[in-house]
Amino acid sequence: MAEIYRASTTAPVNIAVVKYWGKRDAKLNLPTNSSLSVTLSQDDLRTLTTATCSSSYTGEDSLTLNGAPSDISGARTQACLRELRALRAALEEKDASLPKLSTFPLRIVSENNFPTAAGLASSAAGFAALVRAIADLYQLPNSPTELSLIARQGSGSACRSLFGGYVAWQMGSRTDGLDSKAVEVAPASHWPEMRALVLVASAAKKGVSSTSGMQQTVATSDLFKERITNVVPKHMKLMEEAVAARDFAKFAEVTMKDSNSFHATCADTYPPIYYMNDTSRAAVRAIEAINTAAGKTIAAYTYDAGPNCVVYYLEKDTAAVVGTFYPLLTATEGWKAEAKLYASGGVQLEEAVASLIKGGISRIIQTGVGEGPVKTDQHLA
Amino acid sequence: MAEIYRASTTAPVNIAVVKYWGKRDAKLNLPTNSSLSVTLSQDDLRTLTTATCSSSYTGEDSLTLNGAPSDISGARTQACLRELRALRAALEEKDASLPKLSTFPLRIVSENNFPTAAGLASSAAGFAALVRAIADLYQLPNSPTELSLIARQGSGSACRSLFGGYVAWQMGSRTDGLDSKAVEVAPASHWPEMRALVLVASAAKKGVSSTSGMQQTVATSDLFKERITNVVPKHMKLMEEAVAARDFAKFAEVTMKDSNSFHATCADTYPPIYYMNDTSRAAVRAIEAINTAAGKTIAAYTYDAGPNCVVYYLEKDTAAVVGTFYPLLTATEGWKAEAKLYASGGVQLEEAVASLIKGGISRIIQTGVGEGPVKTDQHLA
Repeated sequence: MAEIYRASTTAPVNIAVVKYWGKRDAKLNLPTNSSLSVTLSQDDLRTLTTATCSSSYTGEDSLTLNGAPSDISGARTQACLRELRALRAALEEKDASLPKLSTFPLRIVSENNFPTAAGLASSAAGFAALVRAIADLYQLPNSPTELSLIARQGSGSACRSLFGGYVAWQMGSRTDGLDSKAVEVAPASHWPEMRALVLVASAAKKGVSSTSGMQQTVATSDLFKERITNVVPKHMKLMEEAVAARDFAKFAEVTMKDSNSFHATCADTYPPIYYMNDTSRAAVRAIEAINTAAGKTIAAYTYDAGPNCVVYYLEKDTAAVVGTFYPLLTATEGWKAEAKLYASGGVQLEEAVASLIKGGISRIIQTGVGEGPVKTDQHLA
Repeated sequence: MAEIYRASTTAPVNIAVVKYWGKRDAKLNLPTNSSLSVTLSQDDLRTLTTATCSSSYTGEDSLTLNGAPSDISGARTQACLRELRALRAALEEKDASLPKLSTFPLRIVSENNFPTAAGLASSAAGFAALVRAIADLYQLPNSPTELSLIARQGSGSACRSLFGGYVAWQMGSRTDGLDSKAVEVAPASHWPEMRALVLVASAAKKGVSSTSGMQQTVATSDLFKERITNVVPKHMKLMEEAVAARDFAKFAEVTMKDSNSFHATCADTYPPIYYMNDTSRAAVRAIEAINTAAGKTIAAYTYDAGPNCVVYYLEKDTAAVVGTFYPLLTATEGWKAEAKLYASGGVQLEEAVASLIKGGISRIIQTGVGEGPVKTDQHLA
């Protein structure tokens, strides 16, 4: 019987510290500005994807996502498959001895180790894993940056999940998007002490989708142009300097200011878009209280297109950060065992702030900076 | 015994539709941008102030505010008294027959007909009434615009409360502030159908004061410069056109966009300033629902430096606006008797929005456009 070719990979989630918000080309996912993210550890958040193909497979390509058949006919997914097949086909043309994998139906099986309900950018990890797994299946020689051009077309921020550590998505200027790609700013090993605490807000009705939201912002916010023209370029430069110098206070200030700037342009959209809620804003006050008590900036908040708060901090400051939130959320799912050790190390928050956090957070994720996609022998079928 | 000279006036509250946010000179209250407001009816919201002086009075000037002695030594109040006295002194010099009121101690008694707790800009009505009452006491010939230069030094937005109807505060460009004054854009009689419904949010702890908040925004918001350089001038022009043409849809769109822009620059301040809460944002959604149901823009929201929602609409659309909020807030204090007649005229809001409004609004004020300060024979003592 015909051989079944197979490759599996895991890919990480990334959380931007300089935000992607705005497309200059919706079809190619070309952004209005560059962005920069921290890749989070796959021990806590990852997508595992197995790609197989065989001449014995019949019918269409298929995708099974978290155990359920998933539509694969979307233009974004199709763009990724088409480009990966084209790269494989080029290899097969150069070397007639290669099996014609590009002509076989693909079966892709993918699973997240975290609930999609958590409202974390699972599409980034998902498309990064899909592209990486098929590239491995096809034994493509292409670099992660080259593959990032493909993953970007699946989901913009997915291009950043092809690297570990600290990753920039360079917006590029070409209309064909060939220079809109992800590059490594620094590997996780350069600054391994970076930690992230995710405060998952109680599942409220999902707001405006980010794709639709960013298009409304581009179209209607009078303040948006200032952000992409002046604010983000300044933030990118400062953030690259902060990462290179491992300057947490600088990293944190830019992270918070860029999150504020992004949500400000959402509020300036017409009609206005609000992703943060009163609990999100209480978490901002909590981080400010932690920094005030420390007498320096040891924690940074950032918010994507939703109410979840992601707190960045350094391992040495775990007591101040975990110790502030753990006592309020002791019963909340997701704490690591050692969290309780820090229970007395935190800051006493004012009652109004504490009660909003107590009442509005449904899950915790304790993680940190991590590596990029990893080939694995753990296969899904 | 010596004669007691006396004058009393009432002055209105105004709610800006193009917001004042930012000082270029904190001492003189010179703004970074022009602004435009609607003066609200004194039937519902007004300050009554009586100013007296006499050669028989001894000691310092005094101010009694809502029944309690109030400090009058603040630089802002002193600036108003100094300038008014100087104008009176000049008259006395020209005409020796005039009593030397400028040399007598002043006794000022002032009362609001609404709770300060309502978080409405009572300082605007307060300083407008103080300046107008003393100007009348001194029989100053100066125009409201000339007096607005004095009221501005007490509280910036007070300069707009010296006129009724639709009022612009021209920012001016002089460093001495002599061209930073209020002018009438149109009298109330030009567009008397304008109504305002104030949804007073449950008294939460007062946030950052507007004086301190606007200085933080000027100092730290990267988006603020774009607002004052391009956004506000555009909004001022469009708003003056809308008022001149009585074009409510245009008036409403600029009102909502300017409020959004102002709160966006607050969110872009570092650390961020949040005046709107989840109830405020629910009210935004309610207004959007009212406009969607009407198939045109018949209601506009605007928010000052607090969570209260001010809804502008035309008298003919009372059923759609009052009828949407009355059923949710029937037990809330402040409805006019006729509100119940509109109970069935409104829009059914989605449950999440309705419950935030039900839970977060503590008082209603139903009012509309009104006249400027009025001399009265009702005197306080």
